[in-house]
Amino acid sequence: MEITIVTEEQFISYAGCGLAYYIGGVVEKRSNLFARSPEAFREKQNIDILLGHRAERIDTYDRIVRVTDLATGDIKQMPYDRLLIATGASPVIPHVDGTDISGVFPLHTIPDAEAIRDYINNRNVKTACILGGGYIGVEMAENLLRRGISVKLFETESTIMPRMFDSDMVQDLVKHMNSNGVDLRLGTAVERFAAGADGAVRAVVSGGMEYPCDLAVVAAGVRPNVQLARDARISIGPTGAIKVDQRMETSARGVYAAGDCAETTHLVTGNPYWLPLGSTANKMGRVAGANIAAGKKVFPGVLGTAIVKVFDLAAGRTGLTEREAGDTRFNPVAVTVTTPTRPGYYPGGGTVALKLVADRGSGKLLGAQAVGDFSVDKVIDTAATALFGKLTVSHLTSLDLAYSPPFAPALGALIVAGQVLEEKL
Amino acid sequence: MEITIVTEEQFISYAGCGLAYYIGGVVEKRSNLFARSPEAFREKQNIDILLGHRAERIDTYDRIVRVTDLATGDIKQMPYDRLLIATGASPVIPHVDGTDISGVFPLHTIPDAEAIRDYINNRNVKTACILGGGYIGVEMAENLLRRGISVKLFETESTIMPRMFDSDMVQDLVKHMNSNGVDLRLGTAVERFAAGADGAVRAVVSGGMEYPCDLAVVAAGVRPNVQLARDARISIGPTGAIKVDQRMETSARGVYAAGDCAETTHLVTGNPYWLPLGSTANKMGRVAGANIAAGKKVFPGVLGTAIVKVFDLAAGRTGLTEREAGDTRFNPVAVTVTTPTRPGYYPGGGTVALKLVADRGSGKLLGAQAVGDFSVDKVIDTAATALFGKLTVSHLTSLDLAYSPPFAPALGALIVAGQVLEEKL
Repeated sequence: MEITIVTEEQFISYAGCGLAYYIGGVVEKRSNLFARSPEAFREKQNIDILLGHRAERIDTYDRIVRVTDLATGDIKQMPYDRLLIATGASPVIPHVDGTDISGVFPLHTIPDAEAIRDYINNRNVKTACILGGGYIGVEMAENLLRRGISVKLFETESTIMPRMFDSDMVQDLVKHMNSNGVDLRLGTAVERFAAGADGAVRAVVSGGMEYPCDLAVVAAGVRPNVQLARDARISIGPTGAIKVDQRMETSARGVYAAGDCAETTHLVTGNPYWLPLGSTANKMGRVAGANIAAGKKVFPGVLGTAIVKVFDLAAGRTGLTEREAGDTRFNPVAVTVTTPTRPGYYPGGGTVALKLVADRGSGKLLGAQAVGDFSVDKVIDTAATALFGKLTVSHLTSLDLAYSPPFAPALGALIVAGQVLEEKL
Repeated sequence: MEITIVTEEQFISYAGCGLAYYIGGVVEKRSNLFARSPEAFREKQNIDILLGHRAERIDTYDRIVRVTDLATGDIKQMPYDRLLIATGASPVIPHVDGTDISGVFPLHTIPDAEAIRDYINNRNVKTACILGGGYIGVEMAENLLRRGISVKLFETESTIMPRMFDSDMVQDLVKHMNSNGVDLRLGTAVERFAAGADGAVRAVVSGGMEYPCDLAVVAAGVRPNVQLARDARISIGPTGAIKVDQRMETSARGVYAAGDCAETTHLVTGNPYWLPLGSTANKMGRVAGANIAAGKKVFPGVLGTAIVKVFDLAAGRTGLTEREAGDTRFNPVAVTVTTPTRPGYYPGGGTVALKLVADRGSGKLLGAQAVGDFSVDKVIDTAATALFGKLTVSHLTSLDLAYSPPFAPALGALIVAGQVLEEKL
């Protein structure tokens, strides 16, 4: 096949998930963020890359994409046999005054990250305000502090990461962020940004109070870029992202969608679901690519698995939170159990607080949330696999997990929490 | 219920899995190895403990156990309504001359560990020989080196841990042990132990060669203690351990067995299986205890999951190795894929070599082996849960595992290896 990638960006194939760590200096060189260069695509794989080109319109009847060269304004009519829409998502910018002043940044692309780095490097940035307590806001807080910048984080909800975790699970994270120096302003909506005499951001304003800052980062979530698909009368799902089947094909024959712009299925509820993450995008893209090349692969859906580092703690989730499960046909029962991550006699272990949610009637596991040391990823991956296999709480208690003192206690967190939850069903 | 525990040992409820680390000084105090004291059992739970008492005979018709007080020789006839046989396993001592000389030790109990520690502390132990390259032998090698003792390890098979791993998976472990100073003597059977003028071990002898040593540890595996059950005409399974049903009841009504003396089912093959591990024993004991107390719990079986620390590497397995799968009705296909454990741009990551074995016809996952950094436990737990859920290789490629740069790459080892294996099926 002849393959052409059209992007309005100047960069491709980069690790968007690493941008906060690039700003923080954890990732030292920008070049490390790139998986593959346009040259490598062209020379090794014969894939043509049109940087700085915007796909303006899809004609699904004649199978043509209209593309504008942003540098010259030239318009190309590009025919296709198969089309992949991978338009991603864009940051949500709140409808408040001053989002366009200098020093107020979203964080979504390489140029966003470079702009923040340059701003920090070239100005005397002592204080930053972050809008949004989702995982990007939390990661930015940690990385700005690493740069010696004091941080205020504003979240309109009463907890951080309100869409990821039940509120009882984030209390330790809130304390941990406070003790690491993040000034958390929960339940606080920013009303506007104020500029100083030099035109740069001077403060964020909330509830009549001015919170001085030299930098503001807007991390209020993202929304899927679906305008191109919508204009082509391709179906948009109830989540607002592009509707696809398990083969990643859209409502238009021969047109596929993958990544942050595409909807998928939640494997616990069976409902349409949208949670834009690099891991999901990667898997979707492989399935779409295989099927475009006449393969027969399916992407069954996701479990809403996610994990975030919060200074010295890890916090992860998979499946449904208790609150989410309450909005379904299930009858949720939950327990939270804190267990050591190594036997007590073996040095260096920590603890994990694990919340399990199950359906009372069937005993089926519905979800898991874990906060603790850096073995949270193990607990969450194991729980996610249990959810994928539709295991019950009773099954959890019988799991044959890897045990040896340097790695785990004889009964790991999932087994112990399963035993406790089994008694409540 | 009135509950009495009868044991010929002087210690109960201790972490046998921590003994090597106690000898190495990783575990500093012996008291740390105890989960619960006899007093706690007696006072908090009203469970009577008869230390230094040996159960000599079970009369399953009249429901009486004959018990000898090893200190006084007194014999008690103890009636029971329900009986649990938890006689554990004993170290296999090879049939060679000199296993009884001073300085030649097994490692199975607290007194064994104390004897080795005392011997090291009181004598000028410079060199040790270890017989057996299973996980106890490997852990002992590391812990004796930590004490400044040079170590020769003898294994009759041509690789270490031959019953845990396919030989191709242990090559890196062999190199790593060598580079950490373990003198590995593979394919080498010890023929006898030689004593010095003081009657203490002076050397092990193999192939006519003398290998001088000041200490020898026999780590040649264990066998289940089934004589008590066998004498009571309780069925012994094909593995040589006590046959039980899923409720952990033996062939004698009201008599249960759990732990290292009991057989179970391999969940991949469905065949009787015996792999004595603390994690399995713990789960078996809970199920047996619940059912003795009129509960209705089942222990479905195990997957042969195990993990071992080898200096700076971790090695784990679950399910069937390729060699094991070759002895079954399955048609095994295997791949080994080495992947980074974090994105390349995020500092501090390592690699994991993951071997997956699947059935060609059904695509069903049969087993996983992983060698690499200390995220091996995560990969193995996830694979074990996939095996428990009877997932296929295609399912593995769709797993929604926790992704964030500090924890994992966008596609974890299981997903990548699943993608590669899928192409070979």
